[in-house]
Amino acid sequence: MIQPNDREPSDLIRPTPASASTDATQADPEQRASEQAEGERAWGANYPASHKIYRHLEHEGSELSVPARRIHLSGGEESLDVYDTSGPLGLDPREGLPKLRATWVEKRAARGDKNFSQMHYARRGIVTEEMAYVAVREGLEAEFVRTEIAEGRAIIPANIRHTELEPMIIGRNFHVKINANIGNSAVTSSIQEEVAKLQWSTLWGADTVMDLSTGDDIHETREWIIRNSPVPIGTVPIYQALEKVNGVPEDLNIDLFIETLIEQAEQGVDYFTIHAGVLLRFVPMTAKRLTGIVSRGGSIMAKWCLAHHEENFLYTNFERICEVMKAYDVSFSLGDGLRPGSIHDANDEAQFGELEALGELTKIAWKHDIQVMIEGPGHVPMNKIKENMDRQLEACHEAPFYTLGPLTTDIAPGYDHITSGIGAAMIGWWGCAMLCYVTPKEHLGLPDKDDVKQGVITYKIAAHAADLAKGHPSAQKRDDALSKARFEFRWEDQFNLGLDPVTALAYHDQTLPAEGAKTAHFCSMCGPKFCSMKITEDVREYAAKHGYETESALGQGMREKSSEFAEQGGEIYS
Amino acid sequence: MIQPNDREPSDLIRPTPASASTDATQADPEQRASEQAEGERAWGANYPASHKIYRHLEHEGSELSVPARRIHLSGGEESLDVYDTSGPLGLDPREGLPKLRATWVEKRAARGDKNFSQMHYARRGIVTEEMAYVAVREGLEAEFVRTEIAEGRAIIPANIRHTELEPMIIGRNFHVKINANIGNSAVTSSIQEEVAKLQWSTLWGADTVMDLSTGDDIHETREWIIRNSPVPIGTVPIYQALEKVNGVPEDLNIDLFIETLIEQAEQGVDYFTIHAGVLLRFVPMTAKRLTGIVSRGGSIMAKWCLAHHEENFLYTNFERICEVMKAYDVSFSLGDGLRPGSIHDANDEAQFGELEALGELTKIAWKHDIQVMIEGPGHVPMNKIKENMDRQLEACHEAPFYTLGPLTTDIAPGYDHITSGIGAAMIGWWGCAMLCYVTPKEHLGLPDKDDVKQGVITYKIAAHAADLAKGHPSAQKRDDALSKARFEFRWEDQFNLGLDPVTALAYHDQTLPAEGAKTAHFCSMCGPKFCSMKITEDVREYAAKHGYETESALGQGMREKSSEFAEQGGEIYS
Repeated sequence: MIQPNDREPSDLIRPTPASASTDATQADPEQRASEQAEGERAWGANYPASHKIYRHLEHEGSELSVPARRIHLSGGEESLDVYDTSGPLGLDPREGLPKLRATWVEKRAARGDKNFSQMHYARRGIVTEEMAYVAVREGLEAEFVRTEIAEGRAIIPANIRHTELEPMIIGRNFHVKINANIGNSAVTSSIQEEVAKLQWSTLWGADTVMDLSTGDDIHETREWIIRNSPVPIGTVPIYQALEKVNGVPEDLNIDLFIETLIEQAEQGVDYFTIHAGVLLRFVPMTAKRLTGIVSRGGSIMAKWCLAHHEENFLYTNFERICEVMKAYDVSFSLGDGLRPGSIHDANDEAQFGELEALGELTKIAWKHDIQVMIEGPGHVPMNKIKENMDRQLEACHEAPFYTLGPLTTDIAPGYDHITSGIGAAMIGWWGCAMLCYVTPKEHLGLPDKDDVKQGVITYKIAAHAADLAKGHPSAQKRDDALSKARFEFRWEDQFNLGLDPVTALAYHDQTLPAEGAKTAHFCSMCGPKFCSMKITEDVREYAAKHGYETESALGQGMREKSSEFAEQGGEIYS
Repeated sequence: MIQPNDREPSDLIRPTPASASTDATQADPEQRASEQAEGERAWGANYPASHKIYRHLEHEGSELSVPARRIHLSGGEESLDVYDTSGPLGLDPREGLPKLRATWVEKRAARGDKNFSQMHYARRGIVTEEMAYVAVREGLEAEFVRTEIAEGRAIIPANIRHTELEPMIIGRNFHVKINANIGNSAVTSSIQEEVAKLQWSTLWGADTVMDLSTGDDIHETREWIIRNSPVPIGTVPIYQALEKVNGVPEDLNIDLFIETLIEQAEQGVDYFTIHAGVLLRFVPMTAKRLTGIVSRGGSIMAKWCLAHHEENFLYTNFERICEVMKAYDVSFSLGDGLRPGSIHDANDEAQFGELEALGELTKIAWKHDIQVMIEGPGHVPMNKIKENMDRQLEACHEAPFYTLGPLTTDIAPGYDHITSGIGAAMIGWWGCAMLCYVTPKEHLGLPDKDDVKQGVITYKIAAHAADLAKGHPSAQKRDDALSKARFEFRWEDQFNLGLDPVTALAYHDQTLPAEGAKTAHFCSMCGPKFCSMKITEDVREYAAKHGYETESALGQGMREKSSEFAEQGGEIYS
């Protein structure tokens, strides 16, 4: 077993405390632009009482430094370390991040390995550097990580060309992860904006990022993103393939697709969404739907199938695709091209037909030791969510599930981070390994920086609520630390233990702006005379002092104690 | 059975379309003040394609006019009527709302009734005007409403002095309802602000409002609120009782409390939160907690119990309290003074001990035919929520449950509308009848207008998601109408069918501001060439035309159809 050593954390970043008055959620476009320029300071400004620490360990001659964020508390309370996804900070985006995996990968190439997949190593009993790394990150044993990967229940998306990656694991026996989508479209956005969105997403806690770009500079955008990404990058290669045939789905073919896969794998994409389960026979099933096919990739493949009256070429050439995947250790994210786009269409035959096909493909991928996760819906009412999880585990042999929400109602455009956060939390509890975020702009427009933040934070809430509900051993520590701070009127600690300290502080200051109020022993909601927490504190002290521990003790000498209390002055308020 | 007649709706309000550029969520304080002044126009501005309709019916000589909001759609689609809580609009707050229930109540008083409770009538087989009214509102039969009330599974909170009320029902076999809290505190706020918050809450869909005022003008504030409220008003009378003894809990007594109840009942409060289940023997159980007692009412009673070493006077004098309740038909909302204030404390012995006590009290209230609902938590991880619902139904004999959230994690101050919206949706699905909202300011400060809106909309989402999941017969209509609009690129209809049309429109316009884009046959996310919905439309037309209805049909003549398609030009895009 690999154990983190006790070496002192290296303080790579020791930020200056943020100016308390800035509320990042309210920033206007000009403010935003200047924030972007000072991107390196954003982390410290948003986590004023935190600094990054690295736990170091040696693994088979490699030095691993595993990041965490240490939250410093007041009043002699022990600091709390939390999972951190933000990567090295303050670097020039044109230079990219340090290539921490370069030597690990070189070692494997030097000895002549052909299949670089983590599953391949895991099945041979090898604990890779990546596995050792995620074990420390998750607080679990490396051997457990290896077994989960060998069995296909978890994946470490880690293209050998993405050496900047800080490895992470996706599987239902680990922390629930979240994905943020970025990517320009034909309509708007720029490369710089996309890199800024990447950094912004990981600052708030995105565990992976999908680059869904469809514009002209698709290759260059992706290069910038990968070179600057500490988290796995996923793509939907059919988007770029379609660009190459001028947007005409019928002109797509497997050679062009494979060429696109290689191009992207060479750059370092860590997982590919591939809609190989959109089979010809499922397409007509969608004709009865209220909202047809809502996945872009799914509709492209459906169109191809109908135009050619042939089976989906991604399905018929799946083994050719596998050859690329294993050469780079790109993970499959088998796409749900037929996911429901409305409550009406949830859990229908097209959706579950495709799920069965994805299960077949999982087996084929595993034959090649390729890592696989399965994408899921979408729009599903709460009473139909569990069926999705249960059927996925069965049909896909426990490969990790990765869902988009699901949205639990269709009636709230502008608030779909919330409609979907509900479904995401539930399916995370029931076993979903990764939750793809939804922003307030879903169905309406492209998310801006604030939307990305809202989406990521909502999904951090869903993922954490799921970790608590499924009983992840370390999840409740943070809730307990925050609640203890709240109860003890350590206001700053309460803010700093939260997901968004600066916003919490700003909200508090709207009611009680004085600095003194942040050390006050009452809440801004109730005022000084009327605080239930204060009263409870007194009750507790009193109960402890008088030994009111059992019901029987209470039955005795009530009158006596009552007069005793009166003699003391009948005052237990401070 | 009472049926709504087909009379044409009276167009009490026909608003002018809102100026599209205003995003209400972004309003600064000055804008807000002017908005408040033009309160009567807020409804129309926020629901630009809606108007109010009233369905009329006669019931035993009384004329009932039951409100709904009609959403007008384009493209020849039928309009959709949705539940409306906003009440008569455009009236002078100093005059209050019309007293629509005055004649109903007078009739009962004239014939010498002494117990005015809806449960009393229901158990004698009488369908009151209030029951007939809510039957139309819910789309159910009046006899069903009567039975649910008689059995104690539902309540119609309707003080005979609150004649301005538009009756509504709280029970798990009806639409899930939501409550918004308003009320000034010692620290800030004014009467006018509180009335504006009431109107703002009901505009967005609050089904009941609790006035939690604790300041000096507590009586006057409440008078303004009730006279202007179309929804039931709830209070926590112990707050005012405590003011009368200068904030010293030990000085509270039952006479003072009864006097306070009568004062508030005379004004027309529809339900009272009464913490009669905080028994002396439960108080020491909270000493082991991480966050003790977090309910204000609970901590006041705990302090009283400890100081006097006597049993809670609300418990020992419960029958005296019942005499007031039935004389006015005030409903009990039996308070959960020992609800957990953190994930750590969820589902503990103090909480469930109190729940059992509330079950006993329910039986006593029902002996007097008094309507009862039961308050519930609080902070509960997802895996412990269902136990709350199941135990409540059993311990409290199926009296309606009314929970605060519950929050599913403690780690997101500033986002507790979301942490709690998750729990609220789930417990609503499992049978909770009413959900008390939580705003983004929870734990941090007093909610302003925007916070109230965020809280109400989040809880409308939770309640609606619950209605869908529990299979309420009419719930899915709105989702289907919205999804159909979305699929058919009827952008304005999609916005108008949502919970917040103006915000949805504003979000859309941030990406594609041109008016033309709102009739465009593509989504702003993907651009004109790449829209999956458009492709699906084509797939559907094509599939229908070629009779691809069954798998077997697909097997035949693929080559033939393929060449046919090519001859057509291979182009099915429009």
